Amino acid sequence: MSNPVPMVEVTRGGILESLHTGHAVICDAKGGILRAWGDPDLTILPRSSCKMIQALPLIDSGAADAAGLGSRHLALACASHNGAAIHTDPVADWLAHIGMTEGDLRCGSQEPADLPARDALIRAGEAPCQIHNNCSGKHAGFLTLNKHLGGGSEYVDYDHPVQQAALSAFEEVTGETSPGYGIDGCSAPNFACSITGLARAMAYFATAREGQGARQTAAARLVQAMVAHPELVAGEGRACTSLMRAMDGRVAVKTGAEAVFVAILPEQGLGVAVKITDGTTRASEATIAAILVGLGVLDPAHPAAEALLSQKVVNRRGFDAGRIQPMETLTTGWH
Amino acid sequence: MSNPVPMVEVTRGGILESLHTGHAVICDAKGGILRAWGDPDLTILPRSSCKMIQALPLIDSGAADAAGLGSRHLALACASHNGAAIHTDPVADWLAHIGMTEGDLRCGSQEPADLPARDALIRAGEAPCQIHNNCSGKHAGFLTLNKHLGGGSEYVDYDHPVQQAALSAFEEVTGETSPGYGIDGCSAPNFACSITGLARAMAYFATAREGQGARQTAAARLVQAMVAHPELVAGEGRACTSLMRAMDGRVAVKTGAEAVFVAILPEQGLGVAVKITDGTTRASEATIAAILVGLGVLDPAHPAAEALLSQKVVNRRGFDAGRIQPMETLTTGWH
Repeated sequence: MSNPVPMVEVTRGGILESLHTGHAVICDAKGGILRAWGDPDLTILPRSSCKMIQALPLIDSGAADAAGLGSRHLALACASHNGAAIHTDPVADWLAHIGMTEGDLRCGSQEPADLPARDALIRAGEAPCQIHNNCSGKHAGFLTLNKHLGGGSEYVDYDHPVQQAALSAFEEVTGETSPGYGIDGCSAPNFACSITGLARAMAYFATAREGQGARQTAAARLVQAMVAHPELVAGEGRACTSLMRAMDGRVAVKTGAEAVFVAILPEQGLGVAVKITDGTTRASEATIAAILVGLGVLDPAHPAAEALLSQKVVNRRGFDAGRIQPMETLTTGWH
Repeated sequence: MSNPVPMVEVTRGGILESLHTGHAVICDAKGGILRAWGDPDLTILPRSSCKMIQALPLIDSGAADAAGLGSRHLALACASHNGAAIHTDPVADWLAHIGMTEGDLRCGSQEPADLPARDALIRAGEAPCQIHNNCSGKHAGFLTLNKHLGGGSEYVDYDHPVQQAALSAFEEVTGETSPGYGIDGCSAPNFACSITGLARAMAYFATAREGQGARQTAAARLVQAMVAHPELVAGEGRACTSLMRAMDGRVAVKTGAEAVFVAILPEQGLGVAVKITDGTTRASEATIAAILVGLGVLDPAHPAAEALLSQKVVNRRGFDAGRIQPMETLTTGWH
């Protein structure tokens, strides 16, 4: 956590109320550092920002094609979704399609972030199930791969073939030996890397092209799936969805818990990784938006960009009480 | 936000995942600084941590006694409550008692943090109302004072007599001229001060004694009300409630949004104020617990203390995935 830089200010009544510091790296097509803020060697846990990496073996093993998965399945495999019906219905169908049930998942249950879905469960007197977990698409992908590999039922164990395949892919695209791992909110191992390693991995996805080997083909298909279905990757009102829509499918972005955010820029061949020191999502969202504006791929006048570049702090009567704003150093004076 | 110090580490799998920095000040009975971490001159918005200050005019004006309020009302006036029935029923009764209705409140509506209360509303198809707002007790106090003063209905306006009375009390007990204000989540003005000013105000409450003038009497009664009714000040599962219970009524504590936390130690004549730079409540809770242990008033082996001094990060299957822990510098080596 050495030498983070100021990234996002929170003001109320013109008074600086809170401040978020952090780190960010942009890697170019060759995996070199184009620009860094803070410590490019910082070890991080990428959390859900690396779901597209965890999904690589699903495709390059042949499991996805063997199961006849389409781009909507692949988008859900990369998703931290809201648990709305548009997410849970296809995951339930996917599980049935591969002969699995909700009970085969190992992600745990989670109340949907989607309020209509949440309220419908409460009104029906039903508890949320594992399909509502924001990671259920990733886990449906793990189960699909596991069926292909013939592994045991405990597919989130560190030494299980599914996770070892994920680790192998992770180390290849980050260009690093992972120094360790934590257990994620969904019980899967979450492999550590440097923030530069994560940005390098995103540059791998940005430069991957179909036909250039199984892994590059897998990476390219995952990026295409994410940008084709932004509503499946997160959901209405979420930054991932609104930013991908605002950039018209030219850039893929993904959030991770504890304020990680990544971006994949295929046209520029660039990868971006952000980590806010304190783990606050409002700050990682503002930071990635500012960097995407700086890179010229996000129009700062687009409503989705404006909402993150000068986010209103609205109080309980709807009054505008303050602002959440990224530092200018993230967007200007560095081209 | 100059020179904050590391206060709370978040680890997962033994890897440092996030770090919270901040500031804290302990003031003695004379309002001097006993100990400071970070910048004691930092300007902060105390948010809900100063509700006991905002409640002073309710009592020292004579309004509370004129309305026949008891210690449960005074605890609710200082509360950021969960919106459970134990909070909303007495606030509704209080409003009726002074001839007011929910529509007279100006705090806005808020979904209860208390899950049974939240779910009951959803099942009944009812929207939350202003009485569910965590600040509804404070606002019932404002309305009670306003009735006494004969002010207009817009009692949250900055220049309204109710808020000017609050400002006068605020400046007296902080010992400072407030440099400005923000609009709080509940629409009331939230006056700025230095973090030392907030700690000094808490020392004022710690040393206030009944019979030593109207304001000291008011302060002493508010502290007694808070420690007598910890369940009213926050609610089940909340740090304010669990910490006050753990200290058997000897210390009052109060949280505020954006990671402010204060403590009032009447036996020691000390006041404490904490502000976490990034505004994250998990860190202000861990920090105040560590400082209270350092001050010798919180048993680190008490379950409520343990839960904050080495808070488990539990994932969605209940697995222990990490820890949220205050730095040792907050508890040791400074007596």
